[in-house]
Amino acid sequence: MLQNIRVVLVNTSHPGNIGGAARAMKNMGLSRLVLVQPLDFPAADASARASGADDVLDGAIVVDTLEQALAGCSLAIGTSARDRSMPWPMLDPRECGVQSVARAAAGEEIALVFGREHAGLTNDELQRCHFHVHIPSNPDFSSLNLAAAVQVLAYEVRTAWLAAQGAPAKVEKVDASDELATLDEMELFYEHLEKTLVDISFLDPEKPKHLMARLRRLYGRSSVNRSEMSILRGILTETQKVARGDAHKRKD
Amino acid sequence: MLQNIRVVLVNTSHPGNIGGAARAMKNMGLSRLVLVQPLDFPAADASARASGADDVLDGAIVVDTLEQALAGCSLAIGTSARDRSMPWPMLDPRECGVQSVARAAAGEEIALVFGREHAGLTNDELQRCHFHVHIPSNPDFSSLNLAAAVQVLAYEVRTAWLAAQGAPAKVEKVDASDELATLDEMELFYEHLEKTLVDISFLDPEKPKHLMARLRRLYGRSSVNRSEMSILRGILTETQKVARGDAHKRKD
Repeated sequence: MLQNIRVVLVNTSHPGNIGGAARAMKNMGLSRLVLVQPLDFPAADASARASGADDVLDGAIVVDTLEQALAGCSLAIGTSARDRSMPWPMLDPRECGVQSVARAAAGEEIALVFGREHAGLTNDELQRCHFHVHIPSNPDFSSLNLAAAVQVLAYEVRTAWLAAQGAPAKVEKVDASDELATLDEMELFYEHLEKTLVDISFLDPEKPKHLMARLRRLYGRSSVNRSEMSILRGILTETQKVARGDAHKRKD
Repeated sequence: MLQNIRVVLVNTSHPGNIGGAARAMKNMGLSRLVLVQPLDFPAADASARASGADDVLDGAIVVDTLEQALAGCSLAIGTSARDRSMPWPMLDPRECGVQSVARAAAGEEIALVFGREHAGLTNDELQRCHFHVHIPSNPDFSSLNLAAAVQVLAYEVRTAWLAAQGAPAKVEKVDASDELATLDEMELFYEHLEKTLVDISFLDPEKPKHLMARLRRLYGRSSVNRSEMSILRGILTETQKVARGDAHKRKD
């Protein structure tokens, strides 16, 4: 379904940026690149910056006009600086990702259109796009590198695509030792901890202050799992042995 | 408040990537760059790719170790491939942006840590980070260009920052004892903990297994504050005294 989303670069000056864009696309699972009158392509710089995304470069289609680049598309989204004089339906990058994925999933062809390194898209080109997208940026230094802009929108496409898949779990499968310690186990731990602190004379049972409360607060919010619990209990047991003098004394 | 968020690049090989990262940072409103043993810096390639973000390059701090780079930080987030053998608290880039901004707004110092172009961060370096962040990518072509990775996380920071400008700050002022322990303080704690575990013969320096990594993971996610840290350090000091036999023996 991501194959329904093409990236269109208009009049790119630096072939390195074409390579960087190809790499960013492939990293994010996009493969269809269309170049409108690139100044210098194919080029060694493009291949070098593509770093292995040669298939995207090899498959790139070079055309003469934006109109040709948009052939077959029912949605074109053009990158734009915020303060264009021309008001136009605007998306932020996140909305751009969501819209592109939703409509690509419905079988539509989508184009994400990027302008020249220094001048962006012309007003005429922008008017051929259904929506404009603005990547939020520092007003005093707002012009992103072209490949970086492709990276941001492609990242939002992938994020929306993953969400649409039903969000594959980002937490790996847990085994039993990753299960959280139960409340009973936590209570046994606190008892053990308290006895041990008395054994090493850190806690004075006559003047406990708020020591155990503070330690409960710390460990209580830490979501201690079972394997960690067994480490903590092991440390306490060894500490008690040492305190009672029945451990092998470490020679030092 | 964005000035509380630093970008740390570890052992970068290509100065062009340092320049690209600096540009991406400035575009997104970030300014603090720390370089751990860059192969070649300063360099003409860095300045060329920075395209006007020279102030970020000029202000970059070059250090010898990741530890130095993280000085003063209470939150470090390291970029990581998804399938590390060691499970660790993971964030996606969006959560990374939200967490970084929320905690920077509360006055904390935050580090976003990026590894080498080909090899990423080592396990040891990753263990110094509280969270790992994985940029979702094509499993067959998953390695992003370094500057592109900086762009994605910096973009999410800016997006979260813009969202926070619209929303009232919900983090209350904290008193000094509630301030989180800094990474330096956490490192001193881990050293002290490790020595103590050796003293009580719980940790065999010849066969450390993953014990310290597991304990780092537990305490690293617990947001230990300063008063808790002083309790933990106090417990270790008393335990060591007992192990060395120079404490008052408890009579029982």
